Amino acid sequence: MTTALQTPASRRTGSVGIVQPQLFRCDHPITLQCGKTLPHYELVYETYGTLNTAKSNAVLICHALSGHHHAAGFHSKDDKKPGWWDACIGPGKAIDTDRYFVVSLNNLGGCHGSTGPSSVNPDTNKPYGPDFPIVTVRDWVNSQHTLMQHLQVPHWAAVVGGSLGGMQAMQWAIDYPDLVRNAVVIAAAPKLSAQNIAFNEVARKAILSDPDFREGHYYEHNTYPKIGLSLARMLGHITYLSDAAMREKFGRELRDGAKSFDFDVEFQVESYLNYQGEVFSKNFDANTYLLMTRALDYFDPAEEYDHDLRKALAEAKANFLVMSFTTDWRFSPERSQEIVQALLAARKRVSYADIECPQGHDSFLLDVPRYTSLFKAYMNSIELDGES
Amino acid sequence: MTTALQTPASRRTGSVGIVQPQLFRCDHPITLQCGKTLPHYELVYETYGTLNTAKSNAVLICHALSGHHHAAGFHSKDDKKPGWWDACIGPGKAIDTDRYFVVSLNNLGGCHGSTGPSSVNPDTNKPYGPDFPIVTVRDWVNSQHTLMQHLQVPHWAAVVGGSLGGMQAMQWAIDYPDLVRNAVVIAAAPKLSAQNIAFNEVARKAILSDPDFREGHYYEHNTYPKIGLSLARMLGHITYLSDAAMREKFGRELRDGAKSFDFDVEFQVESYLNYQGEVFSKNFDANTYLLMTRALDYFDPAEEYDHDLRKALAEAKANFLVMSFTTDWRFSPERSQEIVQALLAARKRVSYADIECPQGHDSFLLDVPRYTSLFKAYMNSIELDGES
Repeated sequence: MTTALQTPASRRTGSVGIVQPQLFRCDHPITLQCGKTLPHYELVYETYGTLNTAKSNAVLICHALSGHHHAAGFHSKDDKKPGWWDACIGPGKAIDTDRYFVVSLNNLGGCHGSTGPSSVNPDTNKPYGPDFPIVTVRDWVNSQHTLMQHLQVPHWAAVVGGSLGGMQAMQWAIDYPDLVRNAVVIAAAPKLSAQNIAFNEVARKAILSDPDFREGHYYEHNTYPKIGLSLARMLGHITYLSDAAMREKFGRELRDGAKSFDFDVEFQVESYLNYQGEVFSKNFDANTYLLMTRALDYFDPAEEYDHDLRKALAEAKANFLVMSFTTDWRFSPERSQEIVQALLAARKRVSYADIECPQGHDSFLLDVPRYTSLFKAYMNSIELDGES
Repeated sequence: MTTALQTPASRRTGSVGIVQPQLFRCDHPITLQCGKTLPHYELVYETYGTLNTAKSNAVLICHALSGHHHAAGFHSKDDKKPGWWDACIGPGKAIDTDRYFVVSLNNLGGCHGSTGPSSVNPDTNKPYGPDFPIVTVRDWVNSQHTLMQHLQVPHWAAVVGGSLGGMQAMQWAIDYPDLVRNAVVIAAAPKLSAQNIAFNEVARKAILSDPDFREGHYYEHNTYPKIGLSLARMLGHITYLSDAAMREKFGRELRDGAKSFDFDVEFQVESYLNYQGEVFSKNFDANTYLLMTRALDYFDPAEEYDHDLRKALAEAKANFLVMSFTTDWRFSPERSQEIVQALLAARKRVSYADIECPQGHDSFLLDVPRYTSLFKAYMNSIELDGES
């Protein structure tokens, strides 16, 4: 039997295939924006494709709120679900692994293998829990920079991300102008709106007030805030989908066809959200969720530049691709256009597309032809040093 | 000292002054849409203005999710806050109490004096709690009809409401076509969208999963689901305000001016929402909140007319005023326009205005000049039998 026959048809084309997470341990301390220091930390990451001789083809993938390092391919041949951005990463895809060396990591504070609240605190030999320091987008960029040095990548051909990932791409272009040739900022915003922060606060309150949260020390009690984290995820999920997408997907259909006249789950949309919430609560760490939402709240690269995004972006040397989706109401096209306006005012090279797509914020994860083809065209147009 | 001098300036003009709630007890049983029967029930209500000799000037006010009977005026001279719709009800206001006899009640299932989950169940001599039957918009209309008979009002010059109140006005025009001369439907929708239902489900889950909810029997345990109801209200509040209104009101201001790098409440918007949630949780009954959200979910007058709103409205004899607000994303202008389209298709007389206003869904409660003047013009144009 050949290898090809062992691999399901869907995985033969355009997939990076079976991938293996790797671990980078940084033994140098990192001082975070909050003032605290981690003496050492680990980052779990995956790579797809090959670093070329000129080391000019590296692309960094930055993940969003609930993302992780496993962005493409499969972890085993029995693995049913590919990585979260498999729609955009692989041979011949928007981020073409035949051309690029792609690096995708789990951020510091995460819960998929990188050092985070569920890791052991060397001071106590217990999980950090709520004592894990608050990390910011800038902290992530700094820790990603140490990974970059470890991988001996001299510059990124592109730093790419959607949502919170797009914010990291912006921050990279600002903080390390010489190391970023292109920044791809998808379905993001220059900072959260009061409404965005408000949704995060309701999510946090749901988690913090769950009796099983135990002030963040749930690991030691062998429990987890299932209800609080479910609620947070359900709420998040509503903001990821457009009203139209929800209508299309669920309408007002009743699960059992007739009204039950009680408060049990009966509309399809309730059932779906409850299921999503429950699955998520089992697979994601509540302390990490809290950290991620705070990193979102705090993100505001213009803050230290007189609240002028143009000034914040003034030193950036990257070319930018900014993309938004017409039905995204979490980070609406207007928010992406604020970034574009600031880039134009700062005389940066920027391509912008507002992509008509009914699925809302989550569109950036999906194989939407207008989106992926535009994305691919941009990525293909990037000139790489040493490439003939 | 004259009475006028004792009354603060703001109350001298346009206020109905001091008002007194009244109680109507219906000793006939009411059979609800869920199939259950209440042997008797009480409705608390207020009236403003005087029923004219021809009994042609009565206006019914229907309240929204968290509303009640106290729509205008004050309960005592020390009362600081007027009724919830004081912006629109009073002498010289949109609903002019010099001309109209206004009736405003707390709906069945409510928690402000009408029979509801916190009332004593005659079968058990304990509060109904979760055993209070699910009520629907149609049930409310039927119970309002018994109040109407009690008040010897032969027909309504207008049935008026915003949000869930507007849905009751629509249902009145459909169910009692001969008794409604005008229906004023403000910031409403012909039925909830999947997104609307999803928000309700998250709110319900927050309440139902609060340990202090005690399966709805919290009265007997001398407690209440403070956290769950707070979360529900916080979430509701986000949907009542537009993104722009939140930005205008709070921006990204920090309460103490600097980041705290923890999960305490620190942005102004978090502080505001937490305060709103806490106040609400003390003043509103969680079981009622559950009932109200289900009444919203279930509202769909077209359902029994082949899902054709035009057919549902075919027998209505009322003239309609439909109003929406440009920044309302809970029930967007498009939803009001669905109602208008159906009314036009059914050859009904309908006036429609989409009012430019930054405040979102809550606009209907506010003294927005373009809104109140239009509303007033419509109400003033209504011809009353026996009026010279």
